[in-house]
Amino acid sequence: MNEDIIIAQATPVGEGAISVIRVSGKGSINILDGVFRGKSKLTDASTHTIHYGKIINEQSAVIDDVLVSVFINPNSYTGEDSVEISTHSSTIVVRKIIELLTSKGIRLAEPGEFTKRAFLNGKIDLAQAEAVADIINARTEASLRGARNQLDGILSQKVEELRESLLSVSSLLELELDFAEEDLEFLSSQEAIKKIDSIISEIKSLLETYSFGRVIREGINVALVGKPNVGKSSLLNYMLKESRAIVSELPGTTRDIIREEVSIDGVLFRLFDTAGIRLTENTVEKEGVERSREAVKEADIVLFINDVLDGYSEELFNELINLTKKEKIITVLNKIDLSDNENIKTDIRISALTGKGIKELFDLLKTKALGSKSYTEKNAVISNVRHYNALKKAKTNLIDAKNSLLNNMTGEFVSVDLRLAEEHLGEIIGKVTTDDILNNIFSKFCIGK
Amino acid sequence: MNEDIIIAQATPVGEGAISVIRVSGKGSINILDGVFRGKSKLTDASTHTIHYGKIINEQSAVIDDVLVSVFINPNSYTGEDSVEISTHSSTIVVRKIIELLTSKGIRLAEPGEFTKRAFLNGKIDLAQAEAVADIINARTEASLRGARNQLDGILSQKVEELRESLLSVSSLLELELDFAEEDLEFLSSQEAIKKIDSIISEIKSLLETYSFGRVIREGINVALVGKPNVGKSSLLNYMLKESRAIVSELPGTTRDIIREEVSIDGVLFRLFDTAGIRLTENTVEKEGVERSREAVKEADIVLFINDVLDGYSEELFNELINLTKKEKIITVLNKIDLSDNENIKTDIRISALTGKGIKELFDLLKTKALGSKSYTEKNAVISNVRHYNALKKAKTNLIDAKNSLLNNMTGEFVSVDLRLAEEHLGEIIGKVTTDDILNNIFSKFCIGK
Repeated sequence: MNEDIIIAQATPVGEGAISVIRVSGKGSINILDGVFRGKSKLTDASTHTIHYGKIINEQSAVIDDVLVSVFINPNSYTGEDSVEISTHSSTIVVRKIIELLTSKGIRLAEPGEFTKRAFLNGKIDLAQAEAVADIINARTEASLRGARNQLDGILSQKVEELRESLLSVSSLLELELDFAEEDLEFLSSQEAIKKIDSIISEIKSLLETYSFGRVIREGINVALVGKPNVGKSSLLNYMLKESRAIVSELPGTTRDIIREEVSIDGVLFRLFDTAGIRLTENTVEKEGVERSREAVKEADIVLFINDVLDGYSEELFNELINLTKKEKIITVLNKIDLSDNENIKTDIRISALTGKGIKELFDLLKTKALGSKSYTEKNAVISNVRHYNALKKAKTNLIDAKNSLLNNMTGEFVSVDLRLAEEHLGEIIGKVTTDDILNNIFSKFCIGK
Repeated sequence: MNEDIIIAQATPVGEGAISVIRVSGKGSINILDGVFRGKSKLTDASTHTIHYGKIINEQSAVIDDVLVSVFINPNSYTGEDSVEISTHSSTIVVRKIIELLTSKGIRLAEPGEFTKRAFLNGKIDLAQAEAVADIINARTEASLRGARNQLDGILSQKVEELRESLLSVSSLLELELDFAEEDLEFLSSQEAIKKIDSIISEIKSLLETYSFGRVIREGINVALVGKPNVGKSSLLNYMLKESRAIVSELPGTTRDIIREEVSIDGVLFRLFDTAGIRLTENTVEKEGVERSREAVKEADIVLFINDVLDGYSEELFNELINLTKKEKIITVLNKIDLSDNENIKTDIRISALTGKGIKELFDLLKTKALGSKSYTEKNAVISNVRHYNALKKAKTNLIDAKNSLLNNMTGEFVSVDLRLAEEHLGEIIGKVTTDDILNNIFSKFCIGK
């Protein structure tokens, strides 16, 4: 258990009715009693009770009247003694209370430190701790569901199962090592390979969920490209209107002029309109051209838009495949309300004027983004690159172990690889961890979480 | 007691760790039980207790795990049964929970409606309710202390005392009316006049606090005016640096290019740098000239800055007194580091380069802003124009009553005026009120308060 007592504002800064200050650590309730005047002492309070009173400063002046919630260890978010102070929402009030309490030996919390303590005190595992940040950052309902699923421990449970299967194989193999001289066989090579194969196959399935999970969590970049006047902006506007903009805006984000966000069935699509600028044009618009090229390079999907009257632009397509992979490109034929020349090659035919084909375009975007497989809320899904990399390493270790067995190497070689695989699985849920990993994870949190 | 159940997010929107949703009204705890899954039912909970559980939607999917605080009437902010739901800080989570609960018959709260209910249910009086908004909006420590003082009921108590003195006079006078035919005298005219005079004098003292209270609450506008290169910007920068910018910034406020805020001993000064633009210049800078003239017209204080080398500009001063009152102008002689010509007339001599005279300028600004009188935290101070107007009307009524007595008018005339005075005093603390007054007050609150 950590000895420091930490403090931070837990609610956003801005205009509101109440703000909440969070304090956690052994002795925190006692320190609060020194600045709180209520009906009774907080140290006499039961856990999960709320106390009305006033916070007074050194000069006995009232800073604010507050509600203090008391949480006694282990029954708190962090697992430590904690209090939450609910104040009038005023930056001055919050600052004065935090200043008062830091003068009593409480220190300011680092980003994510409350959640880090929850992890260190065994309240949640590491994948669940990461899900807390994902919930806060979720921009669409699907990303929220994905984070929710992870916080509920669906992924952790799956990883734990794999780790346990692995442990049962490796403990039998290690028994063999211990009794090697007595020539007892606890697990035949064949049986061990079979078991390892089954674990590899489960890890492979899990790795396959990553492209889905990543898209759900982070969204996907779509560049709209085409010669001037093919209808890029009309299409962009139609998509914005049709998706009914279910995207929750983060306040304070400045919207890029050419970037819009839409949520199609809960998937976040960031649409980059390259605004009629040719990709190689060499004019004063140089900066615009560079931005368009960047948008194409960074896009997960490129909508290559052609006009039914002008036909398919072979020239622009050739420019595109110098910037991105062919399979990322969806060729769109627009303005089919004017004419529908069936001879023009295209992936999809639309009219950004009448809306014809837009639903099909949305379906195509979704399939391209998510892949053919879909996962329900009961499935363990990987959405975090840290988890993805750990699983890939575990898979490699297991393949090495299998090869050692196939080549009749001695048990020590097999054991080393199995232990590494187990450690890599353990990294995901935090059974095995280092300060670096923890700092890297929690420094991305906001302060107060 | 209100029959509707109301809901609103109580914490600011933005990036944070937790958000709080507030629900209030008869039956609110019961409705919460329909969407909450915890260890026990909320309707079985004691007041001021906190319950961990999950909010689930119609499809039994978890929206978020939350802490629900239960407050049972009359022991809540509003005086009604209330709950506060503490969620992960996510706009989607908050929206989904509010949507879920509004589908159960709870309606969205209007601005200030929780505080309005606190007032209607007798938890606080009207002046205290207004202080809640003042606390949230306080930009400096002094304005916070002023609002705190009002929330603590210092003003309300004073007004209540005045009302009671008035009631004792008018009830005696009314007794006289009742027994007029029996020719009994309960209170002589002379005694009545003496008592009314004493109340008038107390109201006058209270009215005198307004210029102080208003400045503390709202701050003061200062325009910096002078010919080009007299050192307006240097002075502005020096003032910003010296005041150590104790002003708490509201996020999202766009700062006017020529406007800066400083807090000098807790008083908020808004400094408008007229940026070298002459007041009557007729060039393409017309818009700038217009802005400068507006700044001077709206200023509570004008710093008229002259350069010691160029001397006092009679011409610009003449322009100034066409725009503002002479007593609002402080003449400042800058650059006294270069030369200190004592023959130039000025209110104060400074050097924005070395800082000489700046402290004296701050003192002068404070005296000009606050007047000679100062008030402690125990004084009742008027800071709100609504209170000021109500007191002025009460004073007029009392003077009318006194004149009626002096002119030996019949008791009915006196009584009418005394009753009006009493009503006007009652308006301040909400003893007498109308829907219009209430709507006007609470519509200025934020939603969730």
